[in-house]
Amino acid sequence: MAIEGVTDHLPGRRRDGHAPVGRRQARHDILFEPVEIGPKVLKNRFYGVPYNPGFGPGKPHANLSHRAVQAEGGWAAVCTGVLSVAPDFEANRLVETCWDDSDAPVLRMMVERVHEHDALAGLEIGHAGAEALNRDSRWVPVGPSQVPGWRRQGIVPKEMTREDIERLQREFVRAATTGAELGFDILVVYGSFSYLQAQFLSPYYNRRTDEYGGSLENRARFWLELLQAVRDAVGDRCAISNRMAVAGLAPMGITLEESLQFIEMADELVDLWDVNIGADWARDTASSRFFPEGHQLAWTGRVREATSKPIVGVGRLNDPDTMADLVRSGAWDLIGAARPRIADPFLPRKIEAGEYDEVAECTGSNLCVYAYTHGHVACVQNPTAGEEYRRGWHPERVPRVRDAEADVLVVGAGPAGLECALTLMRRGVRRVHVVDANEELGGHLRWMTRLPRLGEWRRIVNHRQILLAKAKRRVTLVSGVVMDVDDILDYGADIVILATGSKWATTAIDPWTHEALPGADASSANVYTPEQILLEGKGPLGSDVVVYDTDGAFVGAAVAEALAGSGHRVRMVTPHSLVSPLSDDTMDGLYLRPALRECGISCMTGTTLSAVAGDHVRCETAGEFIDLPADATVLVTYRQSEDELYRQLRSRPEDLEANGIRAVHRAGDCVAPRILLDTVFDGHRLAREFDAGETPEVPLRPLPDRWR
Amino acid sequence: MAIEGVTDHLPGRRRDGHAPVGRRQARHDILFEPVEIGPKVLKNRFYGVPYNPGFGPGKPHANLSHRAVQAEGGWAAVCTGVLSVAPDFEANRLVETCWDDSDAPVLRMMVERVHEHDALAGLEIGHAGAEALNRDSRWVPVGPSQVPGWRRQGIVPKEMTREDIERLQREFVRAATTGAELGFDILVVYGSFSYLQAQFLSPYYNRRTDEYGGSLENRARFWLELLQAVRDAVGDRCAISNRMAVAGLAPMGITLEESLQFIEMADELVDLWDVNIGADWARDTASSRFFPEGHQLAWTGRVREATSKPIVGVGRLNDPDTMADLVRSGAWDLIGAARPRIADPFLPRKIEAGEYDEVAECTGSNLCVYAYTHGHVACVQNPTAGEEYRRGWHPERVPRVRDAEADVLVVGAGPAGLECALTLMRRGVRRVHVVDANEELGGHLRWMTRLPRLGEWRRIVNHRQILLAKAKRRVTLVSGVVMDVDDILDYGADIVILATGSKWATTAIDPWTHEALPGADASSANVYTPEQILLEGKGPLGSDVVVYDTDGAFVGAAVAEALAGSGHRVRMVTPHSLVSPLSDDTMDGLYLRPALRECGISCMTGTTLSAVAGDHVRCETAGEFIDLPADATVLVTYRQSEDELYRQLRSRPEDLEANGIRAVHRAGDCVAPRILLDTVFDGHRLAREFDAGETPEVPLRPLPDRWR
Repeated sequence: MAIEGVTDHLPGRRRDGHAPVGRRQARHDILFEPVEIGPKVLKNRFYGVPYNPGFGPGKPHANLSHRAVQAEGGWAAVCTGVLSVAPDFEANRLVETCWDDSDAPVLRMMVERVHEHDALAGLEIGHAGAEALNRDSRWVPVGPSQVPGWRRQGIVPKEMTREDIERLQREFVRAATTGAELGFDILVVYGSFSYLQAQFLSPYYNRRTDEYGGSLENRARFWLELLQAVRDAVGDRCAISNRMAVAGLAPMGITLEESLQFIEMADELVDLWDVNIGADWARDTASSRFFPEGHQLAWTGRVREATSKPIVGVGRLNDPDTMADLVRSGAWDLIGAARPRIADPFLPRKIEAGEYDEVAECTGSNLCVYAYTHGHVACVQNPTAGEEYRRGWHPERVPRVRDAEADVLVVGAGPAGLECALTLMRRGVRRVHVVDANEELGGHLRWMTRLPRLGEWRRIVNHRQILLAKAKRRVTLVSGVVMDVDDILDYGADIVILATGSKWATTAIDPWTHEALPGADASSANVYTPEQILLEGKGPLGSDVVVYDTDGAFVGAAVAEALAGSGHRVRMVTPHSLVSPLSDDTMDGLYLRPALRECGISCMTGTTLSAVAGDHVRCETAGEFIDLPADATVLVTYRQSEDELYRQLRSRPEDLEANGIRAVHRAGDCVAPRILLDTVFDGHRLAREFDAGETPEVPLRPLPDRWR
Repeated sequence: MAIEGVTDHLPGRRRDGHAPVGRRQARHDILFEPVEIGPKVLKNRFYGVPYNPGFGPGKPHANLSHRAVQAEGGWAAVCTGVLSVAPDFEANRLVETCWDDSDAPVLRMMVERVHEHDALAGLEIGHAGAEALNRDSRWVPVGPSQVPGWRRQGIVPKEMTREDIERLQREFVRAATTGAELGFDILVVYGSFSYLQAQFLSPYYNRRTDEYGGSLENRARFWLELLQAVRDAVGDRCAISNRMAVAGLAPMGITLEESLQFIEMADELVDLWDVNIGADWARDTASSRFFPEGHQLAWTGRVREATSKPIVGVGRLNDPDTMADLVRSGAWDLIGAARPRIADPFLPRKIEAGEYDEVAECTGSNLCVYAYTHGHVACVQNPTAGEEYRRGWHPERVPRVRDAEADVLVVGAGPAGLECALTLMRRGVRRVHVVDANEELGGHLRWMTRLPRLGEWRRIVNHRQILLAKAKRRVTLVSGVVMDVDDILDYGADIVILATGSKWATTAIDPWTHEALPGADASSANVYTPEQILLEGKGPLGSDVVVYDTDGAFVGAAVAEALAGSGHRVRMVTPHSLVSPLSDDTMDGLYLRPALRECGISCMTGTTLSAVAGDHVRCETAGEFIDLPADATVLVTYRQSEDELYRQLRSRPEDLEANGIRAVHRAGDCVAPRILLDTVFDGHRLAREFDAGETPEVPLRPLPDRWR
């Protein structure tokens, strides 16, 4: 499997001329036992539950490559995300299709690529019913009753006729038959969250008075008939997995007790119970800001009461001890994972090889959800996620550096600098020096991860710091050293990479003119940036604090919560219509806003700052000016690149040449401040591309996997 | 051009065995004069300005067919929407690409299909600079300065280096050269709104201290260099159109005076000035709720002061008198159109033929923008818009009905029923009877169009009513007749189509349990639906009125405004984070919310109703309960289908057969309530498909133009 010119750091392989770095602990052996599910056998207990990477039917190769890498990484099964069974649940980036013969080639490729790695391939089929938007196709959404959907305010479905019920059951059977014929090992009949089967089971959505509504038996009828029909159609060609939320909390109204009864009713039709919780995705893919690992166990840990069939659950599990204990407890048979599998597709192989340090642990930041919502899957821990096909990035293999004799100096050990250095090391750069001005590495994550709820994000720094520290022969980490241009010129590096990050602006600007607002100037005693408070100890802030958050991401709310925790009376002011709108993209908003209220923080949305005075701020909201008491004002407005070193170096080409510096690059927030996900990505990208012969800040030619 | 079995109602053709229905008025002849733009000649003054239909690079045929129909409809030029010139302005549904050789085949097809109809083909090229999201590609956005974008809060661009400036100018030239080589007649260099050239011109975005920033001359430099380079590259192979917003209002800070100076500076490089206004799209594509037709003329009408080159402007112009006057005034040479061209692609040919009644006038509802934001272009007046390719719908040609002897009864003359009847008539159905229970036709548009700001929507009814009334030989409109099931059975129809619409729910439901909220019941004296107020005259409402709007579309705000106008003290309560969030999708939100405030309406967002009592309502907001005085509560919650007639008819198959009724169908809101756009669409769809041999409520097989 060794590829010429590629640095392979696959688990268990020798590296740096040393012996394998670890050995698996015996208590984890149970994770590598095979498990039967109906007619199929999983080679171990690591189960890749369904999710959509966000490429949709338009970019099949991107989906395929993303999944194939996971099969290679040792997962016993890798499932597709949900595929629509019928055109009235329209395809989009997050929904692929299983409608007709034209879908077959892509699905067949999926089976082949997963089988190549001795893993089972799972096909998930479903229908969103009343929650289908169908804005492209313009088909009317259908549901058990004409009750307005919860998530889709304003959309009222067509009440399904008997013909609709029969039609959609037929469509499921057709999709299942296609899956079996194409060689899928597992058919995942998707009924989680608020999808169609759950809508029938839900007493909130289902108000029918015929035999499909009313009693639990009636509400279960659609789902049971569907499972029976699928079972009849595929026989023992496939294992049938039923995916469901066993606590379909409000607004579904499906209790755990009813779910367990349903499981008993359906048990003989099912080979695997794939269980989670939530009426929607936010309770399932719960972020570390509000939920610990394994929080779903309070519900999914009770499924065993209703079945002796294999069970798989999820819960952002990273720790093999927890996983092994869970299996030993009998609660689950398989460890399901989506986010930890994105963070480290090679998780099973690394645990198998005992290379525990190599595991990139999921931070639970849910930045993957943000990425997925706006584009496609990405990961703050794994910058190759979503780039497997179009950029050809593999999480464990990097191309060997062209000139292994070139020594590289990386200035700045924040998320971009650390990722860049790690990837340079993996590419075989002879010597990588990382120099940071601060005693503690991590860049802005030093202080950010000390804010409330953001502690697990520290894994981004820790993971890289540990691996770099282990690579002593080639990597040197230098902390607490401030470098100026002459220091860099004198350092002796062949290549200099600046990853000097960004800082919060010391001003608030008018949203129209971009002019600084009167008094909003953090060089004043009563105005602060987050860094001034958390790093520089500027203070005291006084009693009343206004946090002005135009950023709308994580820092504003976390700073407010920290200040409230230390006794300040905090008011958040934001021009957004919601506090921290980005929290909704990481599925935290639902929990964050009540949490802020519980801390006594008042929030003024839709409000812009007009001026900061000595003891108050003036704001404009809904056309009126109001004053708020403010002993201190914290500006969480926008960040600005720290690019002075870069500018100075680039302005001295002769000195660079005289000192043997062949190239100066920059990566991460010092190019332009961006979301952490993209900061890490950019550090990785630069390390891969700096010797590719093009200016790394400039796009290469169009990426492949375009729509046509 | 006649196609067997297709009913052709192209302008000027004979129809119904009669002579052409109209003759052009001489005062409109000026609209059909040819106009020179640089090396090219436009055959008339109808100019199809650039816009993206929303299919992106993934569905090229859908884009092409949408545009080809417009060329067929008589427009002298049809332009593409903006094509990205470089990968760091990423492609999406709303941005096609002109990056490399792989783009050529689609672009060549565009030229061919437009040339087929003797129209000129325009290629629009651009770069969004600091406003590029690049969430898929993950390239860093670039801008003249590191100033946070206005529309994209949280995105701070990379400040463009000299290399970036040269690179992007080269990319424009490359794209322009490609366009010239492929045979495009017009190159539209796009600089409107907040795109890259405007960012350089803007003193707000451009804070540079080099020769590209500061004085107007410096800020204009990037744009002028770019135009010069494009001119040098294409010579006189193409006309060069410069598209710009001449009043780049806040937040661009580009004044009309500076724009006119820029036009003088660039005049020799440009063959056509394509001018509009606005810092973003909302001031340009202004909705009829807040702006009259032609409102841009206050700015674009002054461009003539700076140039003698041809000028094209836009302004939702439907009326040929206004158009001709405008040309005669010398203000513009060409009548540009986007929305009126979507509403009626055959506008020029219809005016040319004097078929004024046939013109489907744009309502300015901006539902096209809603559609485009969420999927792709669509139009409430032209249900074929966006369906030209995948559904094969032509705005002026429909397939002849299979059985022309079948008489069709349409029950309900709302938007779906009228559109259905009109299309049935066009398909050649022998007799169409439309029966409505009310004296006035229009369904819910009867009362909705009497609400503030919604008057122009009446065009939806008027257009259809006029055409149906003209077709007396085959269409009968019956108003004020309430039909029950027996009436329908006895009517003598072969086919019955129910288009009975929907009604506002008389309850407000809990968002979680879907249970009715205590007291929120419009059968009480103090609780109202919109229809009860506007149609039934229920009242008096008393002094304090709460409008509870969970719908979030148009009716809630319009009812509130109407009530405030008649002296009530109105409070709007909505669970949405903004009042009327859908208004943002039609670009009204920015104007609507201040307008409501000016009427004295207070708005509580993020607030749910808990209960309605005699003189107050109880609401929950941010975890707290508060009471609001309410003599009356208006529920604008959700609509429910009026499907009782349908259910009854379907339950009596023997009676149907006995009465010779071969089929019963339904269309529009009586299937499921939906946005007006889709209501009209569904009426049209049913009329096209009712005899296609499939159940019309069920999706046909997948539509073509899938992503692969």
